[in-house]
Amino acid sequence: MPPRERMDAYADLIVRVGANVQEGQDVVVMGWIDHAPLMRPVVDAAYRAGARYVEMSYRDDYGRRSLAEHGAEDVLSWTPPHSLLRLQDWADRRVAYVQTLGDADPSLMAGIDPARVGKAEPYEATKLLRRLSNEAHWSRTIVACATEGWARQVYGEPDIERLWDEIFAAVRLDEPDPIAAWQEHIATLKGRAGALNDRRFDAIHFHGGGTDLTVGLLRTSRWIAATDFTHWGLEHCANMPTEEVFTTPDRRRTEGVVRATRPFNWYGYTVGGLEVEFREGRAVRVDADDGGGFIRSQMDADEGGAFLGEVALVDESTRIPDRIFYNGLFDENVACHVAYGNAYTAAAEGAEGLSPDELREQGVNVSATHVDFMIGGPEVDVDGVTTDGERVPVMRQNRWVLD
Amino acid sequence: MPPRERMDAYADLIVRVGANVQEGQDVVVMGWIDHAPLMRPVVDAAYRAGARYVEMSYRDDYGRRSLAEHGAEDVLSWTPPHSLLRLQDWADRRVAYVQTLGDADPSLMAGIDPARVGKAEPYEATKLLRRLSNEAHWSRTIVACATEGWARQVYGEPDIERLWDEIFAAVRLDEPDPIAAWQEHIATLKGRAGALNDRRFDAIHFHGGGTDLTVGLLRTSRWIAATDFTHWGLEHCANMPTEEVFTTPDRRRTEGVVRATRPFNWYGYTVGGLEVEFREGRAVRVDADDGGGFIRSQMDADEGGAFLGEVALVDESTRIPDRIFYNGLFDENVACHVAYGNAYTAAAEGAEGLSPDELREQGVNVSATHVDFMIGGPEVDVDGVTTDGERVPVMRQNRWVLD
Repeated sequence: MPPRERMDAYADLIVRVGANVQEGQDVVVMGWIDHAPLMRPVVDAAYRAGARYVEMSYRDDYGRRSLAEHGAEDVLSWTPPHSLLRLQDWADRRVAYVQTLGDADPSLMAGIDPARVGKAEPYEATKLLRRLSNEAHWSRTIVACATEGWARQVYGEPDIERLWDEIFAAVRLDEPDPIAAWQEHIATLKGRAGALNDRRFDAIHFHGGGTDLTVGLLRTSRWIAATDFTHWGLEHCANMPTEEVFTTPDRRRTEGVVRATRPFNWYGYTVGGLEVEFREGRAVRVDADDGGGFIRSQMDADEGGAFLGEVALVDESTRIPDRIFYNGLFDENVACHVAYGNAYTAAAEGAEGLSPDELREQGVNVSATHVDFMIGGPEVDVDGVTTDGERVPVMRQNRWVLD
Repeated sequence: MPPRERMDAYADLIVRVGANVQEGQDVVVMGWIDHAPLMRPVVDAAYRAGARYVEMSYRDDYGRRSLAEHGAEDVLSWTPPHSLLRLQDWADRRVAYVQTLGDADPSLMAGIDPARVGKAEPYEATKLLRRLSNEAHWSRTIVACATEGWARQVYGEPDIERLWDEIFAAVRLDEPDPIAAWQEHIATLKGRAGALNDRRFDAIHFHGGGTDLTVGLLRTSRWIAATDFTHWGLEHCANMPTEEVFTTPDRRRTEGVVRATRPFNWYGYTVGGLEVEFREGRAVRVDADDGGGFIRSQMDADEGGAFLGEVALVDESTRIPDRIFYNGLFDENVACHVAYGNAYTAAAEGAEGLSPDELREQGVNVSATHVDFMIGGPEVDVDGVTTDGERVPVMRQNRWVLD
């Protein structure tokens, strides 16, 4: 376990930059029972930052495992009534909501029917949590917590110290003043988003290393980076680390061939050597050395599965080491990526609140899936394409060049 | 950690004898995050017993520590609204409620102002929990879970295996059929309570080894043992282990001198060589080799502090080793004991629902404190005294003899 001073510094960063806890604000710190070594310092840090009352909320997926194993079919997705009341209470009190992420036991669900595991989730609570988060009822941040189980998954051995070191480096705790380093980092990412929004590119073109892909954008596409705002205007940083600038593309206008620049893992499926060809938005050919069948079955699962829902730019300044981390906070932020499946309505002006049919009509993709894969690297250059067809360099040799 | 089969056997006992989980009943398993090794098997055991839905609820007193250290005075005893809604939801659903007990870190509150620690508790939630428990809205059992911190407190070293062995022996898991052994044990204790209730003794007399104490009983005193019933009639065993038969005495009629037969610990205060003299119910003299000042200050704290609120009989068949366990489940159940301070209204017929003044008027003690100390042993005999003054042997040489 890292010394208490480093955990305290991490906790301060989470509270001050991530959730941006305000004087007098209530705070919820939620995580797995294995995350106590981080959650406890976060509680203290929240009080130091002026929190009024801090609540700890512990999860243990063993309950979900046992439910999936033993529960009746009609109980699997049941929600205890008080779970909904708790979420509403948090929203009413405009809490700061810190969630720690880090799989405690990747083999927990071994031997349990995956279909039942998938259903063993309190449906109404998940739906309400998503709605309240989308409506920005709290300042929320999701941060990583090392566990032995997660370290074993990443390194093949339970080297939790190494994982802590990589987490701390990824969130800039190795800087002399991490909070100032984050303010600078956020300004850099917002500067990139601003430059892209100023240009109002019609498309993004990735080319090199076997990739020649044009991702058409919407006239309403809005590039987003680093921070969000609650409905009452409190800025917060929803993910730490965060390295990307991303937007919602026009689902109908992806053209060409793209090669994944590294293997990736999705809930236990490893995909390597992926190449996808798009025509008029749709993936028409999927080849892979490993896992191609998995990708094709996901893309076929619903109407929007074979269309892009996200395009994101990450350059070589990323703090994420080039390795599979089996963790969304890390694996996305290592390089430029696209995702097939559902789009973020927040990244398309005027899209929030529209029906699925209205979204598709406007070119915003809708799907039950959303899978990112990395397409960036030194061999892949990135251009912005204007409505006049002019090509403006955005990234060269994996470095950001757009002013 | 004990092998999974022993934990499963313990979990089955907790679920089937303790909470008496019924087919289709919802279950709550609550404990400290350090109790996962017991709580998880209890979840599985509950489903095996026919539970519909099992919820895990984890506590971490670190939150309380941090609140006591940093929180504003007027926030210390604040209750988040959803906490009350959760308790009411559990009552509405008539859950079985398993609580695991076992201090994870006895030094957790070191360095924090004890007065602030005392206040750092959600007052409205504690009050509602007590009311719903008293009104028997759930089948509830409190059971022990070994932790390294607790083992260190008991043995001076973190010998958690030894503590598990002693817990398992105390709850009769060393019997060939623990559930049958419990049914027999419960029948024995209820037999004792029945014999005492049949006699309607006017007083209990402890004599020998320097003790000569008469504890006057009420005409409404009711001896209770082993099990309780929910308001809809489900029998359950609220404490495991349980070895005592107890009742509420007449606060006005304790007379004589009593010697504690072993040292005891109360929230960090160790009391040794205690001798107390009572006249007309009140403790008029308190001597002790250690801790006398603590006892006197507690007795002086309010009007009922110096009067008895409980008398309990435990004989040599107890499964609890003769040692300070720093845990209420164990320390009470080692020998006959009395408690100064608040009385159990359930053990005095017609007392439930009365006001404090009405209770005192009837001879039922009322106080903010309730401290047990052990007065039984081989040198102390116990008689029941009838209204005619006849003395009937109840215990001889620490063995139960009343038919």
